Amino acid sequence: MKVYIEPIGRLINEFSKLPGVGAKTAQRFAYKVVNMSEEEAKVFADAIINVKKNVHYCKVCGNFSEGDVCEICTHRDSDTICVVKEPKDVIAIEKLNEFNGVYHVLHGTISPLDSIGPNDINIKGLLERISKGGVNEVIMATNPDVEGEATAMYISNLLKPLGIKVTRLAHGIPIGTDLEYADEVSLARAFVDRKTL
Amino acid sequence: MKVYIEPIGRLINEFSKLPGVGAKTAQRFAYKVVNMSEEEAKVFADAIINVKKNVHYCKVCGNFSEGDVCEICTHRDSDTICVVKEPKDVIAIEKLNEFNGVYHVLHGTISPLDSIGPNDINIKGLLERISKGGVNEVIMATNPDVEGEATAMYISNLLKPLGIKVTRLAHGIPIGTDLEYADEVSLARAFVDRKTL
Repeated sequence: MKVYIEPIGRLINEFSKLPGVGAKTAQRFAYKVVNMSEEEAKVFADAIINVKKNVHYCKVCGNFSEGDVCEICTHRDSDTICVVKEPKDVIAIEKLNEFNGVYHVLHGTISPLDSIGPNDINIKGLLERISKGGVNEVIMATNPDVEGEATAMYISNLLKPLGIKVTRLAHGIPIGTDLEYADEVSLARAFVDRKTL
Repeated sequence: MKVYIEPIGRLINEFSKLPGVGAKTAQRFAYKVVNMSEEEAKVFADAIINVKKNVHYCKVCGNFSEGDVCEICTHRDSDTICVVKEPKDVIAIEKLNEFNGVYHVLHGTISPLDSIGPNDINIKGLLERISKGGVNEVIMATNPDVEGEATAMYISNLLKPLGIKVTRLAHGIPIGTDLEYADEVSLARAFVDRKTL
C-alpha cells in the first residue's frame, strides 16, 4: 500500500539510511524538511553536497582535511604522534585542549575476525612518517578493546626496534565513578597499573 | 576552539536542526555522509530539494499532495470526511486500511493558550466542502487531548445545525492493556462510554 506520496517516501527512505534512524524518526525528519522554507532546505542540501566536495583525507595523517594537508599537520609540533582509529577520535582528543602534537588516523584496527590485517589499515603511512625522522614519541590511543589493544601491541613491536618511545593511554577507573559500580575489567586494570604516591 | 573543519561543522549544524537530534547524533550523521559515495550524497541532497519542490498542499483537503488535488480526494468516496489535525494523522489512519472516505486536515487545533482560534485553522475550508453537498458523515479524529476535544466540540456544534452526522473516534482502554495499568482518565472514559453486549 502506498501511504506516502513519492517525494516524501523518497526522503524518508534517504533519512532511514542514517545510523540509528528508523521509520518513525525518518518520517519526523522528512516532515521537518517539508515545513522548512525553500531557502532552508537548499542550505541543508548544499551542506551535504559540499561535505562530499570539500572534505578530503590529509595526505600526511589521514584525518579529514579541506586541503591536501590538514591544519593540524601544517601548524603543530610533529615530534609527538598520537595514533587513533578514526577521525572522530581526533575530535574527541582535540576537545580536551591537552594535546599539542599531531595525529595519525589508522582508519580501522587489526581484527582477524573481520579479515582486517595490518596491511588493511594505514600503518605503512605511519612508518613512512617516522622514517623521515624527528619523531620522539608515538602515543597509541586506539580504543581499549581487543582489536585496539592488539593494534597498539603490533605497532609498538614495529616501532620499538627503531628506538622510538611508544606510550599507551592509561586505563583504570573513570574519574567520578564509585568503586562499587566500576566494571571488573577496569578495576582489575587499575590494580595492575597502580601508581606510587 | 575550531574542532571540526568547516564543511563538516556546517553539516553538523544542519543536522542539529532536525527534531530530537543533538550534537553527538548530528556528528554521527555527518560522518555517515562523509563516508557515502558522491552519488549517494547527491541522491540524498536531491531528495531534500525535491520534497520542497514537489510537495504541495491539496486544495481540497489540505493534506500533502504532488498535484493540486491529492490522490485520496481524486479517487475516493467523498460522502464521509475524516477531520484530523495534521498530515501525519492521515498516514496513521491510512496504514490501517480501514477507512475509505476522504480527509480534511486542519493544520492545528484550537488552543487559546497559544492564541490559536477557530479562524487560524482550516475550518473554513471544511464548511465550504460541506456546503457543496454530498457529505453524510464527518468523523472528528483530532487527538484525545484538551485542544483536540475542544476543536471536535466546536466543529460539531457548527455542523449539527446543518443536519450532518458528526461522530468522534471512540476512547477507552487500549486493546491488550491490563486494567491495572490503564491510565485513570482512559479507564473512567471506558466506564462512561460502556456498550451493551
